[in-house]
Amino acid sequence: MFAPVYLDHNATTPVDPAVREAMLPYLSGQYGNASSRHEYGRAARRAIDEARSKVAAVVGAHASEVVFASGGSEANNLLIKGAAACLKPGLVAVSAIEHPCVIRPAEQLRKRGWTLQKLAVDGDGRVDAENFQALIAEQPPRIVSVMLANNETGVLQDIETLAALARTAGACFHSDAVQAVGKLPVDFRRLNAAGVHALTLSAHKIGGPKGAAALILDKRLDVEPLIAGGGHERGLRSGTENVAAIVGFGVACELAAARLAATAAHLLALRGRVECGLLGQGATLFGQAAERLPNTIYFAFPELDGETLVGQLDRAGYAVASGAACSSASPEPSHVLQAMGVAPGLARGAVRVSLGGANTVAEVDGFLATLQGTVRRLQGLTAMAV
Amino acid sequence: MFAPVYLDHNATTPVDPAVREAMLPYLSGQYGNASSRHEYGRAARRAIDEARSKVAAVVGAHASEVVFASGGSEANNLLIKGAAACLKPGLVAVSAIEHPCVIRPAEQLRKRGWTLQKLAVDGDGRVDAENFQALIAEQPPRIVSVMLANNETGVLQDIETLAALARTAGACFHSDAVQAVGKLPVDFRRLNAAGVHALTLSAHKIGGPKGAAALILDKRLDVEPLIAGGGHERGLRSGTENVAAIVGFGVACELAAARLAATAAHLLALRGRVECGLLGQGATLFGQAAERLPNTIYFAFPELDGETLVGQLDRAGYAVASGAACSSASPEPSHVLQAMGVAPGLARGAVRVSLGGANTVAEVDGFLATLQGTVRRLQGLTAMAV
Ligand SMILES: Cc1ncc(COP(=O)(O)O)c(C=O)c1O
Ligand SMILES: Cc1ncc(COP(=O)(O)O)c(C=O)c1O
Repeated sequence: MFAPVYLDHNATTPVDPAVREAMLPYLSGQYGNASSRHEYGRAARRAIDEARSKVAAVVGAHASEVVFASGGSEANNLLIKGAAACLKPGLVAVSAIEHPCVIRPAEQLRKRGWTLQKLAVDGDGRVDAENFQALIAEQPPRIVSVMLANNETGVLQDIETLAALARTAGACFHSDAVQAVGKLPVDFRRLNAAGVHALTLSAHKIGGPKGAAALILDKRLDVEPLIAGGGHERGLRSGTENVAAIVGFGVACELAAARLAATAAHLLALRGRVECGLLGQGATLFGQAAERLPNTIYFAFPELDGETLVGQLDRAGYAVASGAACSSASPEPSHVLQAMGVAPGLARGAVRVSLGGANTVAEVDGFLATLQGTVRRLQGLTAMAV
Repeated sequence: MFAPVYLDHNATTPVDPAVREAMLPYLSGQYGNASSRHEYGRAARRAIDEARSKVAAVVGAHASEVVFASGGSEANNLLIKGAAACLKPGLVAVSAIEHPCVIRPAEQLRKRGWTLQKLAVDGDGRVDAENFQALIAEQPPRIVSVMLANNETGVLQDIETLAALARTAGACFHSDAVQAVGKLPVDFRRLNAAGVHALTLSAHKIGGPKGAAALILDKRLDVEPLIAGGGHERGLRSGTENVAAIVGFGVACELAAARLAATAAHLLALRGRVECGLLGQGATLFGQAAERLPNTIYFAFPELDGETLVGQLDRAGYAVASGAACSSASPEPSHVLQAMGVAPGLARGAVRVSLGGANTVAEVDGFLATLQGTVRRLQGLTAMAV
């Protein structure tokens, strides 16, 4: 198989070989339903319990605070709609740069009598705490959701400060940690103490399989299940558990925790190299002044279309993204860049490189060289067309 | 590993080796996100498209009518809540013997102003069509859900007749086909013509992996997504697709279709053998007079507790169920048997044997012999205790 260099880890990551190995028995002889009262069922239940502890550990939570779901999108919908169903309609506030799987369910709440407020971000993509404080003073939100790290820019938010403000309003505070886990230390005990009630994690973003995710949930928070039925996951998420994927998620969390320091240092070094190269080539870097994930670089060349660039790079053997994978079906410029006030012309040029622990210096150097050639060629064509 | 004889296929099935083989590339080199605009992404998209055609084919639907979900529970919740969100509140009618993942979401609708009516069944577990007709005349339901085949008893419903009645009321009609597919022919075109708007399928009940399922959906039916976000699955189910599980689901459907006639005949022969043996031992068979799935036998011995029997059989090397796996955490007698008017004392004795295509005559004979010994021993203990 033709294997381009993969530089799109924020979209999804390769499944770690150790993760795959751990999953295989649950796709063969250990196929039991974890609810069954026989040896096949008990084996599945034990495997899930073990995975639950590992997932809890990667964010310093208790195993009993882990609610397994099928993906980050489901976990985010569960929290937003599930918490809202247990509250009187009021204000839900989410940052303008949230993933669509936070924004859309918040929009759906309007049908149920809720008002939605999108929290503004500054030019580097950080939620404005003063703005948020003013909003709280005006109309206290009942539910707030702000992500730990943005999937497009990699920009980090000061969640502890925002949660502390939300707490003064008695709001339920959720943070989408899908892109943060495995790239930075995330400590639910500490966040919880600051006023964060729930975190979302997704396995396939950290070397685990697609099909498993978790909502880490303060048990004092009332949440109505999105998927009701047999009463699995303490009644919060029914359905036969995806044992293999959950087991893989557990191992991925274990590996992420063990490798965090080394991986983050490696990624940061590579990121620096890519950014230097990009600036040298005349690219604009988004969120440059903000604290960011060690693996994410989001940039644009003026006048060059991001989609076109991604297509050319793909043909040349480099897999990168032109925006959030989830929304790349839409031709509109990124809502994240729009919220940051980036001019639409420049936003349409956006390209994201998101590195993984296995990427090498040689790979990023090859990418930079290929990019330079491609950009020059495209700029030449653009110049001719003018 | 100690491998008891598995006779619990309605809880979940072994993953077919061909299914597993087909999945493996998507847990290794083919790890792309199907929304990504590069070769990894396109490979994932192609694999999902191919699986979609195979899943559609097993029930004679169009590929464009398939909405992938993470499990049968999610698909059922999506239909019930999603259809309700697009209608004015009114009556939702579900049979009293539905799986909890149909009954619970229907109950949740009460919060939204809906009324829930549970449709009565006769002593053999069949929904009473006259009763249903009377209900329609009195108060026409907006949503109706009746399963094709029950997971506990295996009893089949006359869906075409019920759907035709529901159609006179203009109701949306859904049928949970999770237990029917792979065991009987299911033809969505024909059911759709009779008034059925949606079917639920689940991969892990037909030799596929846990983590994939489908809602087969008449596109004229408005449904609000349960999981909103990036807009996957025509906006009806967002979230990064579980490519490996979907691919496995496709292959499982292909195999199920190819093997249906042979499997059903084999299962029916085994079922007859088990039932003969059970009647000889003095067991009561539930739903005996009704048309049933060829693989399901549900029985009880008076005075013997089902849980105890299942535990003893497990130790003796036979994996069977005491009720629906999903609800076996609750000590109450089965809601299905209660709806059938079975006395609680007898219902508490219920044991389900659900056969799979790989089970053999020797296995069921061994099971019958072991059961006889176990029942005699337990009856002896019971007699002594009296
Ligand atoms: C920040 C963020 N949240 C949520 C999601 C959704 O997660 P999933 O794809 O597992 O549904 C993603 C990725 O797609 C993401 O980047
Ligand atoms: C009839 C029926 N419907 C729905 C389900 C739920 O499916 P899943 O376990 O895939 O969520 C099951 C099995 O648990 C079932 O037997």
